[in-house]
Amino acid sequence: MSQYDTLKAQIASEFGTPVAVIDLDIVDANIARLQTRCDAAGIANRPHIKTHKSPVLARQQINAGAKGITCQKLGEAEIMVEAGIDDIIIATNLLGAARSGRLAALQRQTGLKCCADNQVTLGAYAEAAAQAERPLQVLIECDTGQKRAGVETVEEMLLLARQIKDNHWLEFAGLLFYPPLDGWPATQKFYQNAKAELAEMGLEAGIVSTGGTPNLRNLGRLEGATEHRSGTSIFNDRMMLADGIASPDDCAFHIYTSVVSKATPLRGILDAGSKTFTSDIGGLKGFGLIEEYPEIQIHKLSEEHGFLDFSASKNTPEIGEIVRVLPNHVCVSVNMFDRLITVRDGKIAGELDVSARGRLV
Amino acid sequence: MSQYDTLKAQIASEFGTPVAVIDLDIVDANIARLQTRCDAAGIANRPHIKTHKSPVLARQQINAGAKGITCQKLGEAEIMVEAGIDDIIIATNLLGAARSGRLAALQRQTGLKCCADNQVTLGAYAEAAAQAERPLQVLIECDTGQKRAGVETVEEMLLLARQIKDNHWLEFAGLLFYPPLDGWPATQKFYQNAKAELAEMGLEAGIVSTGGTPNLRNLGRLEGATEHRSGTSIFNDRMMLADGIASPDDCAFHIYTSVVSKATPLRGILDAGSKTFTSDIGGLKGFGLIEEYPEIQIHKLSEEHGFLDFSASKNTPEIGEIVRVLPNHVCVSVNMFDRLITVRDGKIAGELDVSARGRLV
Repeated sequence: MSQYDTLKAQIASEFGTPVAVIDLDIVDANIARLQTRCDAAGIANRPHIKTHKSPVLARQQINAGAKGITCQKLGEAEIMVEAGIDDIIIATNLLGAARSGRLAALQRQTGLKCCADNQVTLGAYAEAAAQAERPLQVLIECDTGQKRAGVETVEEMLLLARQIKDNHWLEFAGLLFYPPLDGWPATQKFYQNAKAELAEMGLEAGIVSTGGTPNLRNLGRLEGATEHRSGTSIFNDRMMLADGIASPDDCAFHIYTSVVSKATPLRGILDAGSKTFTSDIGGLKGFGLIEEYPEIQIHKLSEEHGFLDFSASKNTPEIGEIVRVLPNHVCVSVNMFDRLITVRDGKIAGELDVSARGRLV
Repeated sequence: MSQYDTLKAQIASEFGTPVAVIDLDIVDANIARLQTRCDAAGIANRPHIKTHKSPVLARQQINAGAKGITCQKLGEAEIMVEAGIDDIIIATNLLGAARSGRLAALQRQTGLKCCADNQVTLGAYAEAAAQAERPLQVLIECDTGQKRAGVETVEEMLLLARQIKDNHWLEFAGLLFYPPLDGWPATQKFYQNAKAELAEMGLEAGIVSTGGTPNLRNLGRLEGATEHRSGTSIFNDRMMLADGIASPDDCAFHIYTSVVSKATPLRGILDAGSKTFTSDIGGLKGFGLIEEYPEIQIHKLSEEHGFLDFSASKNTPEIGEIVRVLPNHVCVSVNMFDRLITVRDGKIAGELDVSARGRLV
């Protein structure tokens, strides 16, 4: 029995299937590689913790050299502050969370950096900061092609910058970008104009943040950028493989699942479905890559069943066989689990809580 | 301000957004209606708790007349047994869970009814039952058209029945079907043959189980059926609306989410994305129905953003407005939350733990 087969058998006998397993040796390498990449580009590393939702891993990223972290939810930031992490950008309009008083409560504990793309959000931030009696730093989110959140013009950005400048409880901290892969020239143009106009207002963007793991190939390409937010690179996934930004050896997160049924020679069933992998497709074919049988497609999911199509594969697994699946999108699959099993040196090392999971506000 | 607007504002100020809210008055009505339907058809009600994952709601279903419950995971059954519920069918090949020793441990506490469609699973069950020193009841899962798990022929079923009969630790409990909507005649034919052949072996299917919420319109149509498994009907969702099995007044679960960004007059952003709704489409257009703006499509999701397309709608929400979204598929959306907010008489009543969430094995 290979060491890998032994590991699979041990995991199944200790935990059952399906379970989520991270390889800490690969995690270490991925954390180090991201830091090296950022250092080489002269860009501060501010990893996005939405992928792992673990203060333990966030701390490891900081110890490796990250300047701070990025969160997407107030609840994620609450968990990270509780763990003693205090340099946090929350990269979204925190309007729905601000109203509950939780933003003010957290701001009282730790000075946060939040993002906004509109006046309503700024109003809520000013109120929270006043309640906390501590000025809130605000980055203006700018959209240079994602068509998601973010102001689309420098003029709109300036209106918000003015509102921030004029409010006692708000401090202008910078600009947040999430450039599309081919949108870096447009982002550069936006930034140049923004910088000049802000200077006339007596403001300077202390933080100019770019984001995205596929965008690591563009790291440093925005002249003036100070930091980058990468989430997925700590684990990687099938989408990152398809993108070419990661190799199979860089993939740290897998679902260990059992083949539990084979109705005919052409099809089988895994004990993992959409409540394990999620239904995210990400432009790929099927719902995950089975490492032992890459030709077998997971062509359909129900909640707790993965439907296998054997027709393109010479070899097929036996009922009871454990396979290792690389999910399409790791950030949403991690989010299905309360705990991840950790492996080091090819052996079970322990378990890691996905502490900020379920913090939806 | 309408009572409903007041409720939305109270929920946002107490909890923030996005949050999941269930209306207990509708839940009560849905539980009662399912029981009435089953009673009228002379079929025992064995609701599937995969939808709500709450022992509190399972207990309510039993108090309303349900014979027992259905689980899809061993971990779900563990939570239900802990809450004192003891008539449980686990409706799947529990192979990956059986190996960890957890099936034996639970079987020692409470006699379970498990399902199998192959000899390997039966072998694992026999081992677990021997370890528990308590015979395990087994239903044979039969596939009459779903092409998921289940034996496809009466001959295969009989081989398994023989294996059960010959094993000291296994007891033949019956047959489990999940007929496709149009597969009831085929299911009837399968069952008639199976019944006759089983009788020759001296066996009788004490339980003949059918399943599915859309299949409630076929309830009692399988002559010989003894029980039905319905999960979604406790809450309902956009898929059930589209199916016609539920009306808007039967929908008990909604996501309350805020509009947090409006970049142009044609598009906006919700503070809820695939980590709230999930990416399940279920043959529908968009990722959920916005009750206040049914013409506005949620056309795309990222993890924490819902992308709104205003182009088909005369009215558009303001930034900061709270809207109520009916998700496409409630079973997977509930699974995103650790707790649901409960409402009764149009007012906040409390919170309900999704206790069996994250029990993936």
